Amino acid sequence: MPTFRIEPISQALAPALQHRIDSKTKPLGSLGRLERLAKQIGCIQNTLSPALRAPVMLVFAGDHGITREGVSPFPQAVTAQMVLNFLAGGAAINVFARQNGFGLKVVDAGVNADLPAHPDLVPAGIDKGTRNFLHEPAMSPEQCQAAVQRGAALAQEIAASGSNVIGFGEMGIGNTSSAALLMHFLSGAPLAECIGRGTGLDDAGLQHKRSVLTQAAAHHAGISDPLEVLAAVGGFEIAMMAGAMLGAAEKGMILLIDGFIVSAALLVASRLAPSILEYCVFSHRSRETGHARLLDYLQAEPLLDLELRLGEGTGAVLAYPLLAASVAFLNEMASFESAGVSNRQ
Amino acid sequence: MPTFRIEPISQALAPALQHRIDSKTKPLGSLGRLERLAKQIGCIQNTLSPALRAPVMLVFAGDHGITREGVSPFPQAVTAQMVLNFLAGGAAINVFARQNGFGLKVVDAGVNADLPAHPDLVPAGIDKGTRNFLHEPAMSPEQCQAAVQRGAALAQEIAASGSNVIGFGEMGIGNTSSAALLMHFLSGAPLAECIGRGTGLDDAGLQHKRSVLTQAAAHHAGISDPLEVLAAVGGFEIAMMAGAMLGAAEKGMILLIDGFIVSAALLVASRLAPSILEYCVFSHRSRETGHARLLDYLQAEPLLDLELRLGEGTGAVLAYPLLAASVAFLNEMASFESAGVSNRQ
Repeated sequence: MPTFRIEPISQALAPALQHRIDSKTKPLGSLGRLERLAKQIGCIQNTLSPALRAPVMLVFAGDHGITREGVSPFPQAVTAQMVLNFLAGGAAINVFARQNGFGLKVVDAGVNADLPAHPDLVPAGIDKGTRNFLHEPAMSPEQCQAAVQRGAALAQEIAASGSNVIGFGEMGIGNTSSAALLMHFLSGAPLAECIGRGTGLDDAGLQHKRSVLTQAAAHHAGISDPLEVLAAVGGFEIAMMAGAMLGAAEKGMILLIDGFIVSAALLVASRLAPSILEYCVFSHRSRETGHARLLDYLQAEPLLDLELRLGEGTGAVLAYPLLAASVAFLNEMASFESAGVSNRQ
Repeated sequence: MPTFRIEPISQALAPALQHRIDSKTKPLGSLGRLERLAKQIGCIQNTLSPALRAPVMLVFAGDHGITREGVSPFPQAVTAQMVLNFLAGGAAINVFARQNGFGLKVVDAGVNADLPAHPDLVPAGIDKGTRNFLHEPAMSPEQCQAAVQRGAALAQEIAASGSNVIGFGEMGIGNTSSAALLMHFLSGAPLAECIGRGTGLDDAGLQHKRSVLTQAAAHHAGISDPLEVLAAVGGFEIAMMAGAMLGAAEKGMILLIDGFIVSAALLVASRLAPSILEYCVFSHRSRETGHARLLDYLQAEPLLDLELRLGEGTGAVLAYPLLAASVAFLNEMASFESAGVSNRQ
């Protein structure tokens, strides 16, 4: 596995950025969270005049062997059906990406179907879904490494195309189960606090999911190396996304983080390169059980809290106008001096 | 005073809207707050295919006699200076309005300055600022009525121009004092819970503001009629905004509510016509003390919580992309049937 060279963000311009923010015609600190966001983006880009260019949403799709255990109310075939829906432009992420000027790429990281060629589809399938991690590792070490490397290369291609913002999204029936186990093994959170209703399990379904994942956790007990955990209980879409995050941060891009599954991929990536977290903007707090605690663990401060639990990157794209607003006020607002406005007495 | 005929919103299409939302290719309820917003907007417009047209931000500006008591860290002259900043395009609301496609009109409802003619300025000043409500009513009953009527006429002009969304914003040094007393008299909340730091009072300044407003509340003790309260402790910008809200709701528009002062104006309007609340989208929970409790009192569910406390309508415009997203998913997403996606097992 190659190592990723992710530098801590330079804080050299932080005082000058703060001064620029404080000189704007508004009460000190009155743009709250947007001021911290403007400062972070300025530091990531190491400039007093940051700019967001050609944002891209990458939706990673993959299937999961664990679905054989009945952990989702939707059949596995829905992963491929939703990929076709993405390619036809009819899913929520399509609507929100169009609204917010995002390019959209769907990455087949391991869907259990033969997907047609399409200009928006990146065919990068490692296999036709993972193995059932109730009984065996979800993937081999080689598959895991291949997924991470493919993701990193993909992010680097996007950076080379002129984009400096990548949003991360996913589709994969069963992947809240995978994310729950990643969170449990890598953050040490009690398993029960990592498991939620996913796409909408009822009480009996949730009880069954807990039982299955408790057995799976016992089967893999003792693993702790991030790549070993990723191979054991991850998914191809999660592994490839973690790689893409690492590649994007290496290029100094802004990483726009969506919900529970994306945060779990980031948790893996942050174990391989802790400085990656400085490049992340956390778009929202999802309603999926586990996400709030995972955000706390990552010391993340999400922008939105809209009870979303859809995935696909929807929360990330919905939060993007706030990034644009933070950059715009920093670049475009007048200062007290330039506008001739009296400051505090 | 004319009465305002604001009809309760028809719920006739609510079941059909809910069915349309539930048929979209996503887990049931997974767009959370945006689903309730889509349904509300569909009901306001009484259609399954709502549309947002030509949104306008109205920023009402006025001066306050109470500033003579030192309740703000900024001098009164800043109200007029900021109006000039709005007209020059350099304030936060200008930046965010440009970003989000809002038309911007600044309404001189009673600024203590001679403002130049400008295409974006509506000259509607009732007087050069209110009187000092520590000792006397802020305005006469006639002035209050004139402000409300002028506001209503203005909203109706905007509706006639083809807009169906009005955002409400304000500028007026001293107006958190006015809003605090309106909240106290009309909601019954203890005065201490209505008073905050405004544009950034320190502890001593806050203590002084509390003392001044406690005396003012005692001076006006016993008032309860909404227009009497508005005249006694309101501001011209608040009165004109309340009128504009009433006029906009009468025309069936969507009212996009900003922070503490705008919510206080709405509190007045809702006493004159309770159904107005059904037309309101609450954009954010501000950091100003009193706003969270006032939102609870109005049974409001704000979209954003970004620690904003700037005013000008900034929170309203920042939340607008979420309104656009809710309308877009309702109109543009595929259904399970149209996309050939399997629904829950």
